[in-house]
Amino acid sequence: MIDGVDGHNPESIASAIDRARAEAVRPSLICCRTVIGWGSPNKSGTESAHGAPLGDEEIALVRENIDWPYPPFVIPDEIYATWNAVDEGKASEDAWRAGFERYRTDHPALALEFERRMSGALPETWSDKADEFLRDVNAAAETVATRKASQQALEGYGPVLPELIGGSADLAGSNLTLWSGSVPVTAADASGNYIYFGVREFGMSALCNGIVLHGGLMPYCATFLVFSEYARNALRMAALMKIRSIFVYTHDSIGLGEDGPTHQAVEQTATLRLIPNMSLWRPCDTVETAVAWRMALERHNGPTCLLFSRQNLDFQVRDEQQIQAISRGGDVLRDWEGTPEAIIIATGSEVGLAVDAAARLNSQGRRVRVVSMPSTDVFDAQDVAYKESVLPPLVTARVAVEAGVTPTWVRYVGLQGAVVGIDSFGESAPAEVVFEHFGFTVDNVVATVEKVMTA
Amino acid sequence: MIDGVDGHNPESIASAIDRARAEAVRPSLICCRTVIGWGSPNKSGTESAHGAPLGDEEIALVRENIDWPYPPFVIPDEIYATWNAVDEGKASEDAWRAGFERYRTDHPALALEFERRMSGALPETWSDKADEFLRDVNAAAETVATRKASQQALEGYGPVLPELIGGSADLAGSNLTLWSGSVPVTAADASGNYIYFGVREFGMSALCNGIVLHGGLMPYCATFLVFSEYARNALRMAALMKIRSIFVYTHDSIGLGEDGPTHQAVEQTATLRLIPNMSLWRPCDTVETAVAWRMALERHNGPTCLLFSRQNLDFQVRDEQQIQAISRGGDVLRDWEGTPEAIIIATGSEVGLAVDAAARLNSQGRRVRVVSMPSTDVFDAQDVAYKESVLPPLVTARVAVEAGVTPTWVRYVGLQGAVVGIDSFGESAPAEVVFEHFGFTVDNVVATVEKVMTA
Repeated sequence: MIDGVDGHNPESIASAIDRARAEAVRPSLICCRTVIGWGSPNKSGTESAHGAPLGDEEIALVRENIDWPYPPFVIPDEIYATWNAVDEGKASEDAWRAGFERYRTDHPALALEFERRMSGALPETWSDKADEFLRDVNAAAETVATRKASQQALEGYGPVLPELIGGSADLAGSNLTLWSGSVPVTAADASGNYIYFGVREFGMSALCNGIVLHGGLMPYCATFLVFSEYARNALRMAALMKIRSIFVYTHDSIGLGEDGPTHQAVEQTATLRLIPNMSLWRPCDTVETAVAWRMALERHNGPTCLLFSRQNLDFQVRDEQQIQAISRGGDVLRDWEGTPEAIIIATGSEVGLAVDAAARLNSQGRRVRVVSMPSTDVFDAQDVAYKESVLPPLVTARVAVEAGVTPTWVRYVGLQGAVVGIDSFGESAPAEVVFEHFGFTVDNVVATVEKVMTA
Repeated sequence: MIDGVDGHNPESIASAIDRARAEAVRPSLICCRTVIGWGSPNKSGTESAHGAPLGDEEIALVRENIDWPYPPFVIPDEIYATWNAVDEGKASEDAWRAGFERYRTDHPALALEFERRMSGALPETWSDKADEFLRDVNAAAETVATRKASQQALEGYGPVLPELIGGSADLAGSNLTLWSGSVPVTAADASGNYIYFGVREFGMSALCNGIVLHGGLMPYCATFLVFSEYARNALRMAALMKIRSIFVYTHDSIGLGEDGPTHQAVEQTATLRLIPNMSLWRPCDTVETAVAWRMALERHNGPTCLLFSRQNLDFQVRDEQQIQAISRGGDVLRDWEGTPEAIIIATGSEVGLAVDAAARLNSQGRRVRVVSMPSTDVFDAQDVAYKESVLPPLVTARVAVEAGVTPTWVRYVGLQGAVVGIDSFGESAPAEVVFEHFGFTVDNVVATVEKVMTA
């Protein structure tokens, strides 16, 4: 710590900065003593110099007091000359560029790779490799937790993306954010690609934002969904700054079980979706998880939250066209001949339930479409024709099913529709017991659909 | 700090506690060395002893290892006797009660007051005083910022409620949470009723929760609305624990002006409403502010967020019945003969705009009702007959106006309605400029109502 610096004395400040630069092992804290509104005879040292302009009269007094005879926005030549860094900056930049061109001559491939990474562009091979991975995942047809599917996505995409750098807030083993290519970043060796952040969700998220802003690396960081709340201001800043931070949130609902209501996300999915420019995916199986990761990695103008289950989720069978449609945020997963009589919209762990309910209704002769909507924001951004092909305006018998708060779903099901959700906190019990307690059963979804069909 | 304590040795722990108790000036930190899963031959010292049960086989090995021959849930008599605190507890409680009865004999009024405060009940005079204050506020008919109206409410209610204790996270002067009866709590004198928390929104909110849980005091704490995000886990815990914490949030929208998007709440009002069991009020003038404070103070089973404007808001004229209806969360503020052709629903700073737009439409011969809805959760809890009297199902031409994100309003206006809101971040400019930029103008609200009327 360098304290006692006179914050109104340029030499005192310069000398403090020199001392800080000489410290090679630790960070330095420079503490300056300053007076707010310095130079203002009537307002210096008072809070009135903080929140409001000084006013014309007081500004005139300041000019007199500090002997500043120039009008507003006029910079005296000698001060302009001292501060003008154009020549110095140009010389520095030219030298750096000349050095980089020498580097390019010696290492043409590495120079291109450096430029690619700093620009944030994905590798040329990316698109083909990602397509191939998606085909493999679909062919494997595995029923696993989506947090496990997320780890498989990291295994699939990680080798193509050397700029990927990950981490977790003391939950790496639960979030499944380590993959076979993960190498820890340590105090002795910063060349790794995985940061053990400790239990500090806000710091972790803000740090990832800083890594994106630096450029050259693509960070993702992870914790349980409910703990996203500790980091909301950092998430908001990522969205405001339009940067590609990726936030991985596992244990995404009452499905996490015995840890109980303090750990069970109920309102978080809905509230994260309400942050402007935040993209959010809550995939229902391995295939949607692979697409969600790909969409997050390919997003250039904003952050993404990826929500994954603790518990196993059934693999869903799709044709090629359906697989392509996942990237539109919401698509028809199950359908029958003719116009549907009703639509069930579901996300994540509730999609399997919706499929089972629709199958039961079909066995009773009803045509009930199932729409999987892993990303409401991506679906909202589609053209009207596509959206109306998924949710035809004439089909007003609609039920949304999501293990979270209900109010935001009314804009998809309308005032005539219904939502199977949870508007209270969770309960402590094994996942299947809690889901049944809150009505996430085929019986209840079928009954709810029948009710809106006859309304 | 007391470290090096053997956390598996009762005597070592007891001696550390004795040392901590002997420290009279500072808090003490006791650091114990422990091994997770101690006693388990195969799992102690590993993470597998953290998240999952040991399993029958390993439990049998632990019993053997630590020489514990008793079956599950059997406590040996001598251990039961040592730990049984029933007699000791009863003696302590009897002594305390006897002492309190002597206190009651000497100070009957003070004893009653102590019992009232510890029970969380309001004073007998409360209801009359609160009615009287509301009449005065309505008669004064002032156009002020609702943060100023909030300070007036504290002046009105504070003298009746000696248990009220307030504070702010370094924004007392801006939040206007100090009133003439405020006395600072200091290190030397804890008898005050106002805590200067410093810039620590989470700590402040958690501390207020702790004060409620202790009992005897009624805390409120304050910051800017956008900084509520730093405290969300504490807000969630207040809601989960069903306790009467009161969170005051001023500078509640883009209306705060030049500080810009980092300080302008856009999604917070909507996301706070989504926390289960959180009540939220966003009043439009002095009268609604007085009612909002009263509702928060009278709420016995949960916390309340009170949202106030930085800028002045027009006083709204109401009859006696309308004043009574404010406590129902949403009510008809302006209406015309016959069934309305359209309804504008607004909250807080947008209610005045809605009233002006309805007046212009009325001058053009249209019957447009204005509903002020300061608390959606309180409105939602009303009976269906009341809700349908305010929002008749047959009137489907509906527009909601709120300076915040739009998705949650669809459940009041339906898919045929429209929302005048903001689904992006704010902008830095004086309040009136930003409001106009985002379409919060009479022209735009009128045009939006006309559009839904002809749809």
